[in-house]
Amino acid sequence: MVTTEFDTLTALEAHGDAVMLGAIPPRWDIMGNVNGGALLSVAAAGLRRIVGRPDPISVTAHYLAPGRDGPVEVRGEVAKAGRQFATATGALRQGERDLLRVIGTFGDLTAMSGGFQHVTGEPPDLTPIEDCVPRSVAAPEVVFQERVRLMLDPSCAGFWHGTKSGRAEVIGWISLADGRPIDTLALLLVADALPPTVFNIDAPAGWVPTLELTVHVRAVPVPGPLRVRVRTQFVHGGLFEEDGEYWDASGTLVAQSRQLALLPRG
Amino acid sequence: MVTTEFDTLTALEAHGDAVMLGAIPPRWDIMGNVNGGALLSVAAAGLRRIVGRPDPISVTAHYLAPGRDGPVEVRGEVAKAGRQFATATGALRQGERDLLRVIGTFGDLTAMSGGFQHVTGEPPDLTPIEDCVPRSVAAPEVVFQERVRLMLDPSCAGFWHGTKSGRAEVIGWISLADGRPIDTLALLLVADALPPTVFNIDAPAGWVPTLELTVHVRAVPVPGPLRVRVRTQFVHGGLFEEDGEYWDASGTLVAQSRQLALLPRG
Repeated sequence: MVTTEFDTLTALEAHGDAVMLGAIPPRWDIMGNVNGGALLSVAAAGLRRIVGRPDPISVTAHYLAPGRDGPVEVRGEVAKAGRQFATATGALRQGERDLLRVIGTFGDLTAMSGGFQHVTGEPPDLTPIEDCVPRSVAAPEVVFQERVRLMLDPSCAGFWHGTKSGRAEVIGWISLADGRPIDTLALLLVADALPPTVFNIDAPAGWVPTLELTVHVRAVPVPGPLRVRVRTQFVHGGLFEEDGEYWDASGTLVAQSRQLALLPRG
Repeated sequence: MVTTEFDTLTALEAHGDAVMLGAIPPRWDIMGNVNGGALLSVAAAGLRRIVGRPDPISVTAHYLAPGRDGPVEVRGEVAKAGRQFATATGALRQGERDLLRVIGTFGDLTAMSGGFQHVTGEPPDLTPIEDCVPRSVAAPEVVFQERVRLMLDPSCAGFWHGTKSGRAEVIGWISLADGRPIDTLALLLVADALPPTVFNIDAPAGWVPTLELTVHVRAVPVPGPLRVRVRTQFVHGGLFEEDGEYWDASGTLVAQSRQLALLPRG
């Protein structure tokens, strides 16, 4: 039986009501540390099963330690199971330590579609995907690129090879490399899959740890690559936010993300 | 001894390491439900004491039940106590139910000031405070107005009395009514103290429950009223986000908030 890489990543085996065991496969990392969106996806897969609702709607993780390939454990607790939404809290553990703590509210986005609309935000104006720059060309090879296919708009793709755009922004197209459609769980992966915005300004270089990441999943994506924009307005006090918007092929905003990250000391 | 209203609200008495008892005083409510920022402030006051760090840096609450005046209990657990940051999770309980679940990372923002800066966001261009419209004039009297002094810019203050601006945005000046300075804890209060942005568009009217609220505290405010802008770009599927920016008198962005709220069914 063939399964996708993302489904293998997020597969969990229940041990009782509140504990699930999984294993992070190799090559979801960037320089040895497993990508934060991959960790969040595993944690949310566990909470989602505990609450028995199909879609993550708002999920927040606080990152406590870097993760490695290998066995992990999701522990979860239902905080409230309501008619429309259910909320759970939990932890993703590896060995003797928590990699992250998580809280999430889950529901059924398909049942919520329709109703009053008022949308003023717009997707980024992107170069056609075939003329964009693969992340593997724009930046040093990281194995994570084998999992998530990111095609950077040429306007922001020169950061590693000499031409920072001067804007703390990254835009492009994103999909899963093996062609698996991006569902509401996989939106949590792509919500932390871009190079840091600050690579495009003259900020100190280095590893950029995420303190906290919140993703709002706003609709079930239709198939196809997503258009994505991540930008930063405020870098000060050693911290910066990254605000992401993710649009599907039908032009619907399917997710928003915001993370608070720590600027390298330089 | 005279104390401020906010300090009375957030006063807690420890019962062991992980439980603190408090009481929400009267008149922090809107139509009977205690304001969400007030509830978050009480919860964060508890977690802050548990971790022993001065400033909330990123705090997320998922709201589970409306709160009333009266006794409350904060339960907390330290998830990680690091050198620079400490993370805790917890709940604010009233009677037999959780009003909210919370996760927060705390630290010392004063120690983090300085370093590389790159700021492109700007505060709203506001009418002078003396020419703004008190919330009590712009909207029906709610007792919460006695606690938080909100002066709405005239451009967005007509929503109740006939003239919606058509933009899902509210801008104005905010301070505590009794003159207590806004510190990093009180930023959690003001991060949920404005009328809903959707009151200024033709959305269905009614009670707007917050599912989730995240506040990033980015700097310690200098004294004086804050300039605030809260806006919404995406109303669809029965949900909308509210993005808030809070600026102090020195022109520093001191906090960002984002909440996911449920549109009234109309």
